[in-house]
Amino acid sequence: MQSNILLINCPDEKGLVFKVTSVLYNKFGLNIISNAEFVERKHQHFFMRTEFSGAFNKEELLRDLKDLLPADVHIKLTNQRKKDIVVLATKEYHCLSDLLIRHAFNDLNANILAVISNYDELEALTHKFEIPFHYISHDEISREAHEAAVRETIQQYKPEFVVLAKYMRILSADFVSHFENRLVNIHHSFLPAFVGANPYAQAYERGVKIIGATAHFVNNELDQGPIIAQSVIPVDHSYSAREMARSGRDVEKNVLAKALKLVFHEQVFVYRNRTIIFE
Amino acid sequence: MQSNILLINCPDEKGLVFKVTSVLYNKFGLNIISNAEFVERKHQHFFMRTEFSGAFNKEELLRDLKDLLPADVHIKLTNQRKKDIVVLATKEYHCLSDLLIRHAFNDLNANILAVISNYDELEALTHKFEIPFHYISHDEISREAHEAAVRETIQQYKPEFVVLAKYMRILSADFVSHFENRLVNIHHSFLPAFVGANPYAQAYERGVKIIGATAHFVNNELDQGPIIAQSVIPVDHSYSAREMARSGRDVEKNVLAKALKLVFHEQVFVYRNRTIIFE
Amino acid sequence: MQSNILLINCPDEKGLVFKVTSVLYNKFGLNIISNAEFVERKHQHFFMRTEFSGAFNKEELLRDLKDLLPADVHIKLTNQRKKDIVVLATKEYHCLSDLLIRHAFNDLNANILAVISNYDELEALTHKFEIPFHYISHDEISREAHEAAVRETIQQYKPEFVVLAKYMRILSADFVSHFENRLVNIHHSFLPAFVGANPYAQAYERGVKIIGATAHFVNNELDQGPIIAQSVIPVDHSYSAREMARSGRDVEKNVLAKALKLVFHEQVFVYRNRTIIFE
Amino acid sequence: MQSNILLINCPDEKGLVFKVTSVLYNKFGLNIISNAEFVERKHQHFFMRTEFSGAFNKEELLRDLKDLLPADVHIKLTNQRKKDIVVLATKEYHCLSDLLIRHAFNDLNANILAVISNYDELEALTHKFEIPFHYISHDEISREAHEAAVRETIQQYKPEFVVLAKYMRILSADFVSHFENRLVNIHHSFLPAFVGANPYAQAYERGVKIIGATAHFVNNELDQGPIIAQSVIPVDHSYSAREMARSGRDVEKNVLAKALKLVFHEQVFVYRNRTIIFE
Repeated sequence: MQSNILLINCPDEKGLVFKVTSVLYNKFGLNIISNAEFVERKHQHFFMRTEFSGAFNKEELLRDLKDLLPADVHIKLTNQRKKDIVVLATKEYHCLSDLLIRHAFNDLNANILAVISNYDELEALTHKFEIPFHYISHDEISREAHEAAVRETIQQYKPEFVVLAKYMRILSADFVSHFENRLVNIHHSFLPAFVGANPYAQAYERGVKIIGATAHFVNNELDQGPIIAQSVIPVDHSYSAREMARSGRDVEKNVLAKALKLVFHEQVFVYRNRTIIFE
Repeated sequence: MQSNILLINCPDEKGLVFKVTSVLYNKFGLNIISNAEFVERKHQHFFMRTEFSGAFNKEELLRDLKDLLPADVHIKLTNQRKKDIVVLATKEYHCLSDLLIRHAFNDLNANILAVISNYDELEALTHKFEIPFHYISHDEISREAHEAAVRETIQQYKPEFVVLAKYMRILSADFVSHFENRLVNIHHSFLPAFVGANPYAQAYERGVKIIGATAHFVNNELDQGPIIAQSVIPVDHSYSAREMARSGRDVEKNVLAKALKLVFHEQVFVYRNRTIIFE
Repeated sequence: MQSNILLINCPDEKGLVFKVTSVLYNKFGLNIISNAEFVERKHQHFFMRTEFSGAFNKEELLRDLKDLLPADVHIKLTNQRKKDIVVLATKEYHCLSDLLIRHAFNDLNANILAVISNYDELEALTHKFEIPFHYISHDEISREAHEAAVRETIQQYKPEFVVLAKYMRILSADFVSHFENRLVNIHHSFLPAFVGANPYAQAYERGVKIIGATAHFVNNELDQGPIIAQSVIPVDHSYSAREMARSGRDVEKNVLAKALKLVFHEQVFVYRNRTIIFE
Repeated sequence: MQSNILLINCPDEKGLVFKVTSVLYNKFGLNIISNAEFVERKHQHFFMRTEFSGAFNKEELLRDLKDLLPADVHIKLTNQRKKDIVVLATKEYHCLSDLLIRHAFNDLNANILAVISNYDELEALTHKFEIPFHYISHDEISREAHEAAVRETIQQYKPEFVVLAKYMRILSADFVSHFENRLVNIHHSFLPAFVGANPYAQAYERGVKIIGATAHFVNNELDQGPIIAQSVIPVDHSYSAREMARSGRDVEKNVLAKALKLVFHEQVFVYRNRTIIFE
């Protein structure tokens, strides 16, 4: 039987765990499979994630929780079902192919509904896996018109999340605002080092000994959204910017896959531009 | 005010978190600072660690918990005070010096009551930090007599933990049995690879590309006790066994320090030769 | 223009670098692109890898080198052309798919001539990439007959290397002997820990805090061949053996890809069951 | 017998390795212990590091090399003797104590001639190891006067290198200019992320999942000098800035020690604000 997931966050106060468990256990007799809590000390904010099984009336449960918890609580009651997603890419194959393969072998916890790209390089790859591919060139149209076309195509599919799998165009604040905490990007540097274009060229010039990649939610400032996952690899003087980029690809696809696993399994809270993650 | 730490483990059943929090919050009005739970699925065993503050009657609290929890529950109620320890070493300076320095700067959460060694090489170092040093040579006496002398010296100090900071003698099952889950060793390999003597020589011969170190509780089988922490570093063909040993020293001292931090802060459960660690 | 690669190993003696460069530069006027040397101190053995460009007569160059170098020198003169390979797999998709994707996007430095498996699970995947797939079941035939059939199929393709991409059958010494230093395996543990079957189950039981994978050449002892690359990831008490296996997959595919890159770019020497690798 | 080290860098041209080895081997009959070369492709610059043993006339050897090599070659002929150093610190004990301990056990390849600090917190520690300690307060004097006093004290000792072991004052361009490529700093972030003050507070605010430390030569721009070594550790949402700082200490001391080992063993070239390191 599929388990339920309860995500709660609210200002901290005494007795929150007791109150939540009193509803789940004492009132509804549900079986708690796992439970994790965290109190962010700086702003005294409470986070709790509970997986449980058992039969219950959803409205009643939510009402009982709201009655007991602080007035400004956020409650999300969901489950482990697969998320519907759309993937945006440009020309690089490594992140998209990793998602397509995991999807094909039922290892992504998501349904890839479509792939959208501003180039057609990845069409054949996408079609191998029988996923719709939309080629929306940015040539000869304005940025606004291109974004509108992309957004319209996305919205046909009503996805819960949009994944930027090396989509190399900067998205406008307006575009982003339609997908708050639902737009996951992979940036090819260890943010906040090397924001913006050509991070590997920047890394080469700076002579760093470690390079990395960062998966994050996108908000309206370039590469400034809440970080979900990061990973790094060592490099040395013998790496050109191009060799860094080549080595970085494996890090990028791994970090993106790791972040999506966390997001699609409902393990991530976003709070004040930071993520709280229950692994 | 110093916080209290409650460590509970017992066979899993429904409602345990509710029951514990009902005592702490509902009955005693205590303030829970942090809370972590884990259920080991294979044997359906429940672990919980709670930090809390507030005034309470210890006997009453323990009695109330025992009344509510399963009959075979283990409950430990403690706090963050410094642990009393004795350190055993042989000739290598790096782990002992790391502990002495952290101790001197109040960064170990332990009182080093004494250092015992089967050589006198580290006496001057220990005395720099005004810690008693006991040189108990193993020359010309039996293993039994040597162990008895070491044990007697340890017991003068009544330590809560004994740390083997590169103590290069194998301890008998009898010796070990007096310090169950209280004897922490650093082994200079990534266990279970390279059990026993000369792990770096073994690692060189096998041509591994990564070496490591393992901090673990000692039980009565060589290098088989519950692992607390491990760490690794990359090596390549250019490392001789001696250079591996040299590079490994930094890993050893870091892993030992990390493991002791976890143990001394009451973050470690031992269960069926494995550790459950709440970080 | 494609560069040439000269691989030399011989007992060490004075002047070897001078002698090699005197032939390449002084006699033939070739342009050295990169040069790496290493002397293994324990057995006083010399290794040198040189990339160079320019026109030359191959027989003459080799003769001149042999005239100057010790009698028992090994010299290999090759280049960066793609290697012909055959891949063996069983049921798991992650390593094979990674190789197929890299191959499809020209990022493997190898031609995958065929995939052979003792199950048919991966046939559809392989066919997506238009690679021949041979399903050779081990049901109802002897181990010898199965191996003979596999070997015969491999030999139709005359590959330079055979890659075991999670091929879960133990190969006989006889089979292996036909592919000395040409058979690359990925083992799902940090060797020499957890040799043999079910390494993740072994890792779970031992309670390790780090798991890993090892790519190695196969010789006639189980999991004892020369190690090419290893990598690890941290785990904790919350991982079941199954979750270790799932997390380990990404490590396995990355380590295999890294090892193959080194092998296919002629960066690996094998000497006394160890590898010398010029990165 | 102590080996000699020859460091050469010059614009790349054909035959450089041949020319250098022809002098060392053919002319002087010296025994090359190890040899490493690298050509930086972007600017076509050649680097070579050779360790060799044998008797020779230094002036003659250098003259012969200069005769054969390009006019603008840089040649350094040195050896593995211990370097004379002065250490600057402020209040934090962890980097200084690590250097003092390694020094005391002959594991630093340097003589610590003195410690200078703008506070007196570390005086007792330094004196334990019988090293002179100079307390030069910055109170009630100008930055210029303080720097002048520090510089004067350093120069009494004529050190080859000055190590900033968590010296928390920004040094002026004038001060730095006296120690080109001789001033090694440890910065408590993974540069170029979090330049300047309070990097852990910055890291906390940005919500990074990895923190690190960077050892680098200091030049006249804040935290912009050539990077020698970097290392990182994972963190998560549960780390406050203070806990990041505490965990970061171990990374800082390890990276500083690693960088100093490379520098003191003559393994580091500086070229165009990057380091070329032969490990």
